[in-house]
Amino acid sequence: MKVDGKHFRSIWFDGDRDTVQIIDQRWLPHEFRVVDLTTLEDFAVAIRDMWVRGAPLIGATAGYGVAVEMARDPSDASLDHTWDYLHATRPTAINLRWALDDMRALLAPLPAGERAAAAMARAHQICDEDVECNRQIGLNGLEIIKKIAATKKPGEPVRILTHCNAGWLATVDWGTATSPMYHALEAGIPIHIWVDETRPRNQGAQLTAWEMVSHDVPHQLIVDNAGGHLMQHGLVDLVIVGTDRTTSHGDVCNKIGTYLKALCAHDNNVPFYVALPSPTIDWTLKDGVAEIPIEEREDEEVTRVWGKLDDGTVAQVQICPDGSPAGNPAFDVTPSHLVTGLITERGVCEASAQGLAALFPERVLD
Amino acid sequence: MKVDGKHFRSIWFDGDRDTVQIIDQRWLPHEFRVVDLTTLEDFAVAIRDMWVRGAPLIGATAGYGVAVEMARDPSDASLDHTWDYLHATRPTAINLRWALDDMRALLAPLPAGERAAAAMARAHQICDEDVECNRQIGLNGLEIIKKIAATKKPGEPVRILTHCNAGWLATVDWGTATSPMYHALEAGIPIHIWVDETRPRNQGAQLTAWEMVSHDVPHQLIVDNAGGHLMQHGLVDLVIVGTDRTTSHGDVCNKIGTYLKALCAHDNNVPFYVALPSPTIDWTLKDGVAEIPIEEREDEEVTRVWGKLDDGTVAQVQICPDGSPAGNPAFDVTPSHLVTGLITERGVCEASAQGLAALFPERVLD
Repeated sequence: MKVDGKHFRSIWFDGDRDTVQIIDQRWLPHEFRVVDLTTLEDFAVAIRDMWVRGAPLIGATAGYGVAVEMARDPSDASLDHTWDYLHATRPTAINLRWALDDMRALLAPLPAGERAAAAMARAHQICDEDVECNRQIGLNGLEIIKKIAATKKPGEPVRILTHCNAGWLATVDWGTATSPMYHALEAGIPIHIWVDETRPRNQGAQLTAWEMVSHDVPHQLIVDNAGGHLMQHGLVDLVIVGTDRTTSHGDVCNKIGTYLKALCAHDNNVPFYVALPSPTIDWTLKDGVAEIPIEEREDEEVTRVWGKLDDGTVAQVQICPDGSPAGNPAFDVTPSHLVTGLITERGVCEASAQGLAALFPERVLD
Repeated sequence: MKVDGKHFRSIWFDGDRDTVQIIDQRWLPHEFRVVDLTTLEDFAVAIRDMWVRGAPLIGATAGYGVAVEMARDPSDASLDHTWDYLHATRPTAINLRWALDDMRALLAPLPAGERAAAAMARAHQICDEDVECNRQIGLNGLEIIKKIAATKKPGEPVRILTHCNAGWLATVDWGTATSPMYHALEAGIPIHIWVDETRPRNQGAQLTAWEMVSHDVPHQLIVDNAGGHLMQHGLVDLVIVGTDRTTSHGDVCNKIGTYLKALCAHDNNVPFYVALPSPTIDWTLKDGVAEIPIEEREDEEVTRVWGKLDDGTVAQVQICPDGSPAGNPAFDVTPSHLVTGLITERGVCEASAQGLAALFPERVLD
């Protein structure tokens, strides 16, 4: 999407300079840094140290990493080493493994001399497929926004709350939860976004708010505590969030605090939608609360907050007394009965086994 | 309560030095600063600039402010001026007005020569009454904790979640929501407190966590997003929060985000109690969501976070991009049907007109 009027993806190949470029997201929202990734080590660092984040973007970055290394050394040994080396950067990232497996399955049967070109073509394709998937999610979500807009007075915005960053920065472009919003803007529908800051890591304040400022989307940043009050007073028309993993029965695992927003949406009859590319559906799971293990992350994410000092430098401040231990579950699960619908690239369905099976009949296991 | 093993109130009269002292709470949790208040101006600054905060403590501070000024000039003109001067510091604070009215009603009929002594005696009494009220709240809440403790294995703690700071720092001693916790500790019942950080002003992280560290109470700091997940997984036995204002029908106005905790408590069958001294009941109101106006505070509370840098100095960091507007409702209302019970100084009652009327029959209007 746009940054100061110019269109960007989160990763791209600069053909003039024959170089892959990314936005080094560690500095957002305070600095917009574009960097070259030219060696396998560059790609590994970018993934491991979270210069890029978000499952689709990690997969796309890995794809380009393989392509760049194949241009240097297309041997079987190099292909195996590249898989191992990149996989080790974030071993639990499912999309990383998927992209690496996909690249190796394509390249292994080819003569070494053909691997570099094939790898680069496939890396481009992985990006384009992600963009197209998110575009479809956006078009499907746009229909929901259009229906709400039709109930509004002319010029009155559709007010959408979102949590965390399921934006274009987490994908190659469009984002998932944000794609319907960007499509609404392109369709001329006025919108206003309530951006949850999303403690502890503040991806809402740092990334989603930055997307909104950069693309000129009307919005307000709110603390995670505020959404319930806004809904009680009729100030939210719709919630759209992303997801890290959705079960075959429609339970939604997403950033910690999503469940609380689903509860207040339900209590106030505010539609609560989850936008997801179908690869994030885990067809092997049913009961999300019981079956999905929740990562407990380090205390410092809770006890320290990162931001920009008045002199423009960035720093962390400790917000609590020395000696206070923290608890830091990174995700929670929203039971399907609190979810109005799932917005996928194939269409919108009920968050249930039946709903998902109707859209993805080929994936139903039994 | 205790700070490093020594007992403190949040305001006290040092008889040896004939001086009122407070904890300058602006520096908590990073510095424990005790300061003298010796002139009327000192008291006004302490209230206006939030060196002291919390309704009961503001009232107590105003009482001492009047007493100190009466010792300097006990004239009628001085009494009127003192009322006006202190009232202007935080004109919307109901307890401030209550304390000033109470002092003036006592002092105005007295000869000027008797006013200083009477004022000081009454200021002491206001403090002692607050302490006794909170002690009763604690004893009543203790019964709830005892019942839960009886269902636990020996040594297994009762896990209590609280939001914001309804602790001894907001009162003269004991606190309201924290009083049952401190009483449980004194009764030898093991407890574990989940402390919501309470964005945007982080009173949980700054004040409640500091109380817990200082008094050696087992606890963990969590982000406001985490409580729902903890309750889903059976890790919270009880919620106790304070309130700024409770309606005659039991709707509870409290710090923003309280409503979200009540929703997840309700969804997971976790008892949700509100601790309150009866003066915070607004007998003129019924429907809290419809009738209680919610203060919208400045953007900077959301966009900037205060804390301690690694070099030990305190500073604010901006967490979002330049140009992101914020929304900052300071309170929300939890409907009575989500509240398990109200813990008052007279006993525990249902959060309803009937429940409150049974405890406070003299206050029922019609």
